[in-house]
Amino acid sequence: VSAPPGGEDQLLAWLRERLGPGSLLGDDTALLPAAPAGARWVATVDSQIAGIHHPADLDPALVARRLLAVNLSDLAAAGADPAYGLLALAAPAGYDHRRFLAAFTAAAAAHGVTLAGGDLARSPERTVATLTLLGLLPAGRTLLARGAGRPGDALWLAGGLGASAAGRLLLARGARAAWADGVGAEGESDSSLVIDLPPSLPPGLADAAHRSIRRHLAPLPQLALGRALSEVAGGSVEDVGGGPVAAIDVSDGLALDLARLCRESGTGAEVEVERLPVAGAAAELAPWLGADALDLALHGGEDYALLFTLPPAAAPPAGSACAHIGRLTAGPDLVLLVLGERRPLAPEGWDHLLG
Amino acid sequence: VSAPPGGEDQLLAWLRERLGPGSLLGDDTALLPAAPAGARWVATVDSQIAGIHHPADLDPALVARRLLAVNLSDLAAAGADPAYGLLALAAPAGYDHRRFLAAFTAAAAAHGVTLAGGDLARSPERTVATLTLLGLLPAGRTLLARGAGRPGDALWLAGGLGASAAGRLLLARGARAAWADGVGAEGESDSSLVIDLPPSLPPGLADAAHRSIRRHLAPLPQLALGRALSEVAGGSVEDVGGGPVAAIDVSDGLALDLARLCRESGTGAEVEVERLPVAGAAAELAPWLGADALDLALHGGEDYALLFTLPPAAAPPAGSACAHIGRLTAGPDLVLLVLGERRPLAPEGWDHLLG
Repeated sequence: VSAPPGGEDQLLAWLRERLGPGSLLGDDTALLPAAPAGARWVATVDSQIAGIHHPADLDPALVARRLLAVNLSDLAAAGADPAYGLLALAAPAGYDHRRFLAAFTAAAAAHGVTLAGGDLARSPERTVATLTLLGLLPAGRTLLARGAGRPGDALWLAGGLGASAAGRLLLARGARAAWADGVGAEGESDSSLVIDLPPSLPPGLADAAHRSIRRHLAPLPQLALGRALSEVAGGSVEDVGGGPVAAIDVSDGLALDLARLCRESGTGAEVEVERLPVAGAAAELAPWLGADALDLALHGGEDYALLFTLPPAAAPPAGSACAHIGRLTAGPDLVLLVLGERRPLAPEGWDHLLG
Repeated sequence: VSAPPGGEDQLLAWLRERLGPGSLLGDDTALLPAAPAGARWVATVDSQIAGIHHPADLDPALVARRLLAVNLSDLAAAGADPAYGLLALAAPAGYDHRRFLAAFTAAAAAHGVTLAGGDLARSPERTVATLTLLGLLPAGRTLLARGAGRPGDALWLAGGLGASAAGRLLLARGARAAWADGVGAEGESDSSLVIDLPPSLPPGLADAAHRSIRRHLAPLPQLALGRALSEVAGGSVEDVGGGPVAAIDVSDGLALDLARLCRESGTGAEVEVERLPVAGAAAELAPWLGADALDLALHGGEDYALLFTLPPAAAPPAGSACAHIGRLTAGPDLVLLVLGERRPLAPEGWDHLLG
């Protein structure tokens, strides 16, 4: 019995041949291997919707990679190791499913993620791609959670702020990006992004613009740091000192995600503005964009930086580039310290319902 | 720090209060409990898109229940026990998220499913709801798979055919349905569907119409049968005789899903038309709908019946209402036996890309 051309079963046959023997695809339900002794499974889900989370005409290869990256960022913030993905892809007629799937499986393989299942559907107006990622938390590591912070803990941030939001504004002003063909799993690199900038952009801003768009479209999940922090939280790193570590990835803006961490931890927070790692690209581009760099950094979102807490005396894991941006407080308020002055920090950012 | 009214965080706070203490919600990543000794996790994903899988204006409470049911049907066809769900819900402004979530969590609780995570987003034109279900396959049970069939195996079907497709046609002709409010987890029953029929429908067809629409909107996943078959496949049921059991749930039409089972098993199949459990409601309604009842039964889809194979001498699990509809053959062809005459059975049904 052969599958009809252009249909679902033919696409799946192509994908399974591409993935090779031992693929978990073929049934509606995938049987996961037994977790290693003492390890636990974790799960997260996130979507990318055309015209909401990325430009409506974005290259399917970039959508696929971004979908994976934002989900990996959630696992990074939990301190878990990525393992399996289940992909639901709803797309209009004529969508280049093969381009999406080839990019997805290549990027997934580079992160140790196996596609274990999926669902295909038609969506008349726009592509909606949803990925569920399953990961493993090995024995000896503790899940990082939003609610593990305590008053007095130091607040740390890994990754720059604001560049992604600047990249989003550049795309809204006509910048375009595509993924360079012919780059396989070996050549994984976000330098494979081909970017066209708006003609009106001053040449001196081109480098900052490239960096911003790259950060927006190809975020870098902080998996190694999350892993190291989950060892700290598990008490298995002697020189750092074990103890509770709260963490959240900055997807909706530092202020809003900090508010979430504080709400779950039952704390407030103080952030020192001069310690914030505002991305150089955001600072350079802000005037041309008519934006405020600090506003992009605090509320712009989609940085996929990792915000975390450590006991006051503890140092962040060796080799990680982290900024010590403030501390958790007993009070419920979020405070921004600007040259010693205390200003309220509004918990505003990207709301997925209000937009 | 309080969450802004009408936004994502406020909705999640409402949901977590509803679910009570111990909820896995609150972080982007959920830590699943360790599987019992010898048990394995399984995973499946399926979507419901407004206007594609159900009428665009369908009651959110019914969308939620149907989303759960179609995913449960996949676990039933694998022989696994449902455990956790991750829900991605993309909906237009003004969507009644609380109605959706209240119905979802009530129906999930009735099936032992805990909501472990989710993602909310705006989708300008239509609702796209995607559920990933995680289940457990306990020790001693074997996953049912499409590819486990062998030539000579008997082909069985649990559940009627064609009624769901008739229900879909009735909805396209103006029938309407809603979920009755005020029915909690205790009162779970698909009789809580309130149905308005097209005025032009002859009164004598009203009962068949109610049954068809109910079957379409509130499918009944065959979880108990799938569980019993996974015990047969695991060799742990002495009186039935253990052995490989192939299974698939009939979501895209008997002919197409049989073709998939045969392709994975490397077999053909013969189906005896007079043994097919064509739903009485489909037979009654077909003339008024201008449809052919056999066509609805073979190709209509969304029956969520369970198609499975057993070794030739084995009987289906006691207490299950199954029809013995044919057998797997060595040849690659699908054959329909009509009064002894052999006709080709086209592997046609619902294709999720071609529509």
